[in-house]
Amino acid sequence: METTRLSLFSLLPFLLLAIAAAATTGGELSTFIVHVQAEENHVFGNADDRKAWYHSFLPDHGRLVHAYHHVASGFAARLTRPELEAVSTMPGFLSATRARTYTTLTTHTPEFLGLNVEQGRRNYTSEFGAGVIVGVIDTGIFPDHPSFSDDGMPPPPAKWKGRCDFSGTSCNNKLIGARNFVAAFNGPNGTSSRVPPVDEFGHGTHTASTAAGAVVPGANVLGNAWGTAAGMAVRAHIAMYKVCYGKVVIGCEDADILAGIDAAVGDGCDVISISLGGPSVPFHLDPMAIGTFGAMEKGIFVSMAAGNSGPEESTLQNEAPWTLTVAASTMDRSIRSTVQLGNGAYFHGESLYQPNAGFYPLVYAGASGKPFAELCGNGSLDGFDVKGKVVMCELTRNITVINQGEVVESAGGVGLILANPFSRGNDKLAQANVLPASSVDYYAGAAIKTYLNSTANPVARIGFRGTLLGTSPAPSIVFFSSRGPSRHGPGVLKPDITGPGVNVLAAWPFQVGPPSAPVLPGPTFNVISGTSMSTPHLAGIAALIKSKHPNWSPAAIKSAMMTTADITDRSGNPILNEQRVTANLFATGAGHVNPMKAADPGLVYDISPEDYIGYLCSMYTSQQVSVVARRRIDCSTTVVISDRLLNYPSISVAFPASWNSTAPVVVRRKVKNVGEVPSVYYAAVDMPSSTVSVDVFPRELEFVEADQELTFSIYLLPRQSAARVVQGALRWVSEKHTVRSPISITFDS
Amino acid sequence: METTRLSLFSLLPFLLLAIAAAATTGGELSTFIVHVQAEENHVFGNADDRKAWYHSFLPDHGRLVHAYHHVASGFAARLTRPELEAVSTMPGFLSATRARTYTTLTTHTPEFLGLNVEQGRRNYTSEFGAGVIVGVIDTGIFPDHPSFSDDGMPPPPAKWKGRCDFSGTSCNNKLIGARNFVAAFNGPNGTSSRVPPVDEFGHGTHTASTAAGAVVPGANVLGNAWGTAAGMAVRAHIAMYKVCYGKVVIGCEDADILAGIDAAVGDGCDVISISLGGPSVPFHLDPMAIGTFGAMEKGIFVSMAAGNSGPEESTLQNEAPWTLTVAASTMDRSIRSTVQLGNGAYFHGESLYQPNAGFYPLVYAGASGKPFAELCGNGSLDGFDVKGKVVMCELTRNITVINQGEVVESAGGVGLILANPFSRGNDKLAQANVLPASSVDYYAGAAIKTYLNSTANPVARIGFRGTLLGTSPAPSIVFFSSRGPSRHGPGVLKPDITGPGVNVLAAWPFQVGPPSAPVLPGPTFNVISGTSMSTPHLAGIAALIKSKHPNWSPAAIKSAMMTTADITDRSGNPILNEQRVTANLFATGAGHVNPMKAADPGLVYDISPEDYIGYLCSMYTSQQVSVVARRRIDCSTTVVISDRLLNYPSISVAFPASWNSTAPVVVRRKVKNVGEVPSVYYAAVDMPSSTVSVDVFPRELEFVEADQELTFSIYLLPRQSAARVVQGALRWVSEKHTVRSPISITFDS
Repeated sequence: METTRLSLFSLLPFLLLAIAAAATTGGELSTFIVHVQAEENHVFGNADDRKAWYHSFLPDHGRLVHAYHHVASGFAARLTRPELEAVSTMPGFLSATRARTYTTLTTHTPEFLGLNVEQGRRNYTSEFGAGVIVGVIDTGIFPDHPSFSDDGMPPPPAKWKGRCDFSGTSCNNKLIGARNFVAAFNGPNGTSSRVPPVDEFGHGTHTASTAAGAVVPGANVLGNAWGTAAGMAVRAHIAMYKVCYGKVVIGCEDADILAGIDAAVGDGCDVISISLGGPSVPFHLDPMAIGTFGAMEKGIFVSMAAGNSGPEESTLQNEAPWTLTVAASTMDRSIRSTVQLGNGAYFHGESLYQPNAGFYPLVYAGASGKPFAELCGNGSLDGFDVKGKVVMCELTRNITVINQGEVVESAGGVGLILANPFSRGNDKLAQANVLPASSVDYYAGAAIKTYLNSTANPVARIGFRGTLLGTSPAPSIVFFSSRGPSRHGPGVLKPDITGPGVNVLAAWPFQVGPPSAPVLPGPTFNVISGTSMSTPHLAGIAALIKSKHPNWSPAAIKSAMMTTADITDRSGNPILNEQRVTANLFATGAGHVNPMKAADPGLVYDISPEDYIGYLCSMYTSQQVSVVARRRIDCSTTVVISDRLLNYPSISVAFPASWNSTAPVVVRRKVKNVGEVPSVYYAAVDMPSSTVSVDVFPRELEFVEADQELTFSIYLLPRQSAARVVQGALRWVSEKHTVRSPISITFDS
Repeated sequence: METTRLSLFSLLPFLLLAIAAAATTGGELSTFIVHVQAEENHVFGNADDRKAWYHSFLPDHGRLVHAYHHVASGFAARLTRPELEAVSTMPGFLSATRARTYTTLTTHTPEFLGLNVEQGRRNYTSEFGAGVIVGVIDTGIFPDHPSFSDDGMPPPPAKWKGRCDFSGTSCNNKLIGARNFVAAFNGPNGTSSRVPPVDEFGHGTHTASTAAGAVVPGANVLGNAWGTAAGMAVRAHIAMYKVCYGKVVIGCEDADILAGIDAAVGDGCDVISISLGGPSVPFHLDPMAIGTFGAMEKGIFVSMAAGNSGPEESTLQNEAPWTLTVAASTMDRSIRSTVQLGNGAYFHGESLYQPNAGFYPLVYAGASGKPFAELCGNGSLDGFDVKGKVVMCELTRNITVINQGEVVESAGGVGLILANPFSRGNDKLAQANVLPASSVDYYAGAAIKTYLNSTANPVARIGFRGTLLGTSPAPSIVFFSSRGPSRHGPGVLKPDITGPGVNVLAAWPFQVGPPSAPVLPGPTFNVISGTSMSTPHLAGIAALIKSKHPNWSPAAIKSAMMTTADITDRSGNPILNEQRVTANLFATGAGHVNPMKAADPGLVYDISPEDYIGYLCSMYTSQQVSVVARRRIDCSTTVVISDRLLNYPSISVAFPASWNSTAPVVVRRKVKNVGEVPSVYYAAVDMPSSTVSVDVFPRELEFVEADQELTFSIYLLPRQSAARVVQGALRWVSEKHTVRSPISITFDS
C-alpha cells in the first residue's frame, strides 16, 4: 500500500482511527472502491452472477479486491488512474473513491451503568442479549480468552450464515464467527481468504469483550482495577470481522472495512460495532456511511465512535443519522498514583503500573529546548541528561503514553509525570506504563512547572494508592471525545449519546506493563481509553434492547437509548466537561446511556429507510443518493424530507446570524406509543425562556392504543440577542415515563 | 384610618398583602412612623426613659401610637402635616414615613418536603425545633385548635419574656405568647393594650400552624385532602403578634407591623415569620426592612413572603438581603374536579367542595358584554340570565374565588368554571367554593370558549374525583409567585428560595364551604394558596436548623437552606414555571427547600451585621443608613462593601448593555467549613460556556479544621452576543457535600 499517513494525529494515544491520504500518481496501482448500478429491473441470480458483472468492469480478474453484495453495489479493485478513467466511462458506473487507510480507535462499566443482574432480570427478563448476534469490525480477536467462553451459551440462531476462519475449536457458541478482510493478507480477488483473524494488537479483543464478553471473575491489570469483567450483553453471540493489520501502528483500509460490514450483514448479525472512523466527508463519498446505510435498511443497528479529536467543536467523525454516534465519558473509578514534590505539595494522578518509588530529581523534558521535546517522542531526549531522574512530559495525540514511558526509560529516566496540556483538562489516563508514572491534570502540570522554576534542586516522588471507586464527577465528558456540531448533517444533532470510554478494563491478548513486571496467573486484561471503548458499550446495550424488542427498528432502538439518557451525573448535577464546566449537547448528545430506562422508553421516534432517502434528497443529487441507496433514486419523484422534518429523537436548528423574523421556525415530529395504554403525556420545555421561546402543539398527547402514533409541532422563536448557541430539551412526561429530546439552536456567525 | 386602598390588586385571591396609599390632606390626623436619633453616647436607663424622650417630640401624650425599643429607634404617632413638620425640625429627628395599610398575604407538605419522622430523627436528632420560639406576625390566632395543643411540649426557655393576652388557658407550652398590636383596637398610646389577638379571618391561624403546629391526625377540608396535619417544627413554640384586623378585607398598618416585630424581638423569639409585604421601596424607607434589620442584628432569622404579583419580572416584595425572601411552588397533590362538555371533551380542574352535579347549560360571564363581567365581581351578572346554568368566569387578583362563587350563586347559577387567564398558566387553585366549581388552566379555558362558540346549546357537567397524590410536575413555580430581579438591591439575587405555597392545608378557625355543606366533626382546616403559605414553611425549617445549630447566624441558616436547595423536581428534571417551561432564577431563587440536606450543608456563606452596614453604605447616605442601623453611621469611615463583595450565598451581576470589555468582572466570596475535616472541595460551574466564561480560583478548597474559612474569586467574562439573562450555578463539591450557589448575569437593555 503506497499510502502515506495524513498525520500521526490519530494514532494510538486514545485509540482512535486515522485517515491517510493517498498519493495520486498516474501509473501506479491503487485500490479504488467503485460503485456501480445495474440496468433497471436487472436481477442477479446469485453472488457469482453479480461478481461476474463486477469483473466486466475490470481489465483482468486479478484486479478484484472485494466484491460487495449486501451493503454496497460495487467492488474494490486495484487500478491505475488511466484504468479507472476507462472504468468510469462504462455503463452502470456511478462513482469511485480512493481507498483510505485508517488505524483503530476501550470493566467496572456494567456496575457503573447499573447493569447488575437484579435490575437486568427485571428490565431485560434475564435475557441479557440472548439470541442476538453482535458483529464487531476491528483488529481481530484473541479467541482463547475466558471472555469468549461459551459456558451456558445456546447455539447461534438458525439465520446465522457466518463462518469461523480460526482452526480447531477457537470458535464456539459465544464467538460464533471470525473472518479476515485485510486484503493485504489475502490473495488477489480474496480467493485464498482463510487467514485467521488473529488480534495482534488487542483492540478488537477489548471491544468485542466489552460489547458481549462472558462473565470473568478476578479480572485485573497488574493487580489494579480488580473486579468481575463482563460485557454489556453477556448472553449475546459475537462475530469478529478483522479489517485492520499491524502490531504497533494499525492500518485499516476502508475497502476492507466495507467488506467487513458487507459480510456482517450477509452473515446475519443484528448489531454492528465499529470503533473506527475517519474525518467527516459527505455521506455519498463515505464508504462507512454507505455500508451502514445498507445495514440499517436490513434492520441492523450500528454503533460507531464519535472520534477522539476533542475538545474543539466540529471534530466529529461518523455522523450519518442512520448510525449511533457515541461520545466518551469518565467513570467513578480512579487507579491512583500520586506525585509528591520536594516542597510537600502533592497531586493525584493515575497509572496502572504501581511499583514503589522514592524521591528523585525532577526535570521537565521541555527544558531541553528541542522542539516538541516536551512530548518525549523517539529521540527527543537524546543528549539531555535525565539519568536517575523523574521526567515530566506532556500528553499528546501523537505518541502513545506507553511509548513516552519507553523513551524516558531508555534515556535513563526513573519516573514519568505526564501532564495533560489540553485546555484546562481534568482528565487523567491510567496506562500500563513501563516505569513508575503518574498521569496528572492540567493544573497539577502547571503547579509542577512553577515548582521547577522555584528551586535549584527540584525533586519528586511518585507514590501509588491502588484503585478507588466512587470518585467524582462521574460521568464527565473526557477532553478527547470529539464534539459536534456535525459538518455534513448540521440539521441532525451529533454525537447522539455518551458512554464509558475512559480507563475501561476489558480482555487483552497478553500481559501489559514493563517486561520486568511479575507475570500474574489467569487471563490478561488491559485498561485503555477512547470513543473506541464507549462504542461497544452502546452496541451491547442495543443487543439487550433488541433481544427484548426483536421487532424494533434501529431508529426505535436508538430513540429508546437517547430519550432515556441521563443528563445528570452520579451526584444529580449537570454532566460536566473536561474543564468541570457544564458539557453542552455537542459533547454529550442526548446524555449518558441509562440501559435500565432504555428497556422501557414509553414513546419512540421511529424512522424508515424511505425517510432517510427523502432526507438525503434534501442534500444531494439523485446520483449521489443512488450511491448510498444502492438503487436508482430519482429525487424529483421522491418525498424530500428536510432535516427539521426527519423524525430524529433530538432537535437541531441553525438560524442565519442575520435572522430577525418574528415568525417562528416549525419543527415536526411523530411519536409511537410503546408503553402502557391509555397514557397521557404533557409537554415540558427545558430552555432558558430569555433566549428562545419554544411552543409545543398540542401540549398534551393522549394514547389509547398500543403502537399508536401521534404527531406534534414545535415552534421556535429566538429572542433578541440570543447567545450563539442555545440548548435545552423537550420532554413528554407521563405518570410513568419521561421522554426527553435535546434541542440545540445555533446562530451562524 | 382615612387611608384608601391603592388597588384591590392584592386582596385575597392568593392571600397576599396590599399596600394602601395615604391621602395627604393638611389638617387631618394621620399616623406617621418617626425615626429619631439620640445624642452621641446617650444611654437610656429603661424603656420608660426612652418613651419619655419620644413624647418630647409630640404635642401631647395622646398622640403616641407605638414606642419602638428593639428594632427601631422611634415611634408611631398621630399627627397633622403641620405638626409633623414641627417634629421634623427638632434635634434628633431622622426621618418619618406615612403609615401604610396592608392586607395579608397555607398539609401534605411535611411528606412532600421529606420531613418524615425517620429522616427527621437522623438529621435533626428528633429535636424538630425543640427549644426554639417562632414569632408569627399576622392576623392573630384561633388558640383552641388542636394544632396548638401542647401535649408533650416542655415549658418555653427561660429567656422568654413574652405574654399572652388571651384569657384563661388559651395559651400553653405550644402557643406561649399572643399579643395584639392593632392600634385601632387599643387605646391611644397603646395603654389599654390587652385586646386578645383573636384571628377573625384565619390567615394567622393557618400560617402559625404551618410553621410549628402540632401533629393532628385526620385533617381534611370538606372531606378532601385527608391526612395528618403537622407544622414544619412540631416541637417549636409559637408566639403570635396580631397586626391585622378585619373579617373579610384585611388591614395591617406598617406602624403596627413594626410594633409586632419590635415586641417579637424583645420577647425573645428566635425565628420570625412574616406573610405580609408591600411594594418594593428603598430599605431606609421600608419599616419592614428596618425592623427586620434589628432582628437580624440580634441573631433572629426572618422569613418573608416574596409576594403574589407574578408572573411578570420585578414584581418582588420584601427584598432586604438580611431576610429570607420566599417564593411559592406547587405540590404533587390535586383535589380534582373535572369539567365535561357536551361534545365529550373533558378537562381536569380543582375544587375543595365536591358535591355531585349533572349537565347544565353553559354560559360565559364575559358574554354579557359588560366591562369586566368575566371576572364575576359583585353586580357584574345583574340582568344577565345565568339561572340554572354553569357559568365560566376568569381567575383574577381582584375578587376572591369564594366571592366569585357567591356572585354566581346569588345570580341563580348552578356551577362555576374558573379559567386561569394568566399567561398560559397551568395552575389550578383548589378552593372551598360555595357551589359546584372547577378551577381549570389556561388551555382548558380557551378550549371551553371555542366550544361555546361552536354550538347553539352548550352544556357542561362538573364532576368530582377527590384527592390525588403524586401528580406532576411538582414542585413547579406557581403563576402568582412574584419574580425578581430585585429593584432596590439588584446586586442580590431575589427571591432566595421557594417552598410549598399552592393548595396548602392548615388549621382554620371555622368550617369553610357553603352553609349548606354538612358540618363535619373534629377540628377545622382550610386549603389556601400564596407566598403567605410558603413563608411559614421556611420559618419552621429555620427553627429546625436553629435547634440543631443554636449558634448559627441568620445568614448561616439562610446559606444552609439555599446551597442545599433542589433545582430539580420530583422526576429529576428542571423545575418548571406556570407555563411548563424551565423556571429561571428570578422565579426559583436557589431552588426548592430541602430540609434534610439543609441540616448538614458542609459549607456556609456567613454575613455579619457590620457587612450589611458596609453594603448599605454602598447604596445610601450616612443618614439613610443610620435609620436602618438605628445608630449614627458615618459611611465615610465605614468599610463599604459593594454587592459583588457581600458574602451572599447566591451571585447576581448586571452588566451595562454597552459592556464590551475583555477584562472579567471579579466576584469574591468566603466559605466556612461546618462539615467534616479534613475535606476537599472542587469547583464545578453549571453555565452554558457559549454565553459567559466563569473561572474560579482557587479551583480546589482544602479544609483542615472545623469553622475554617477560605476565600475564593469568580471571574465572569461574557462572550459576544450573550443573552439578556444568563443563569447557572457554581458548585463546591466534596465526597459528601454539594454546595450550590446560583449565578445570575443580566445585561441592561
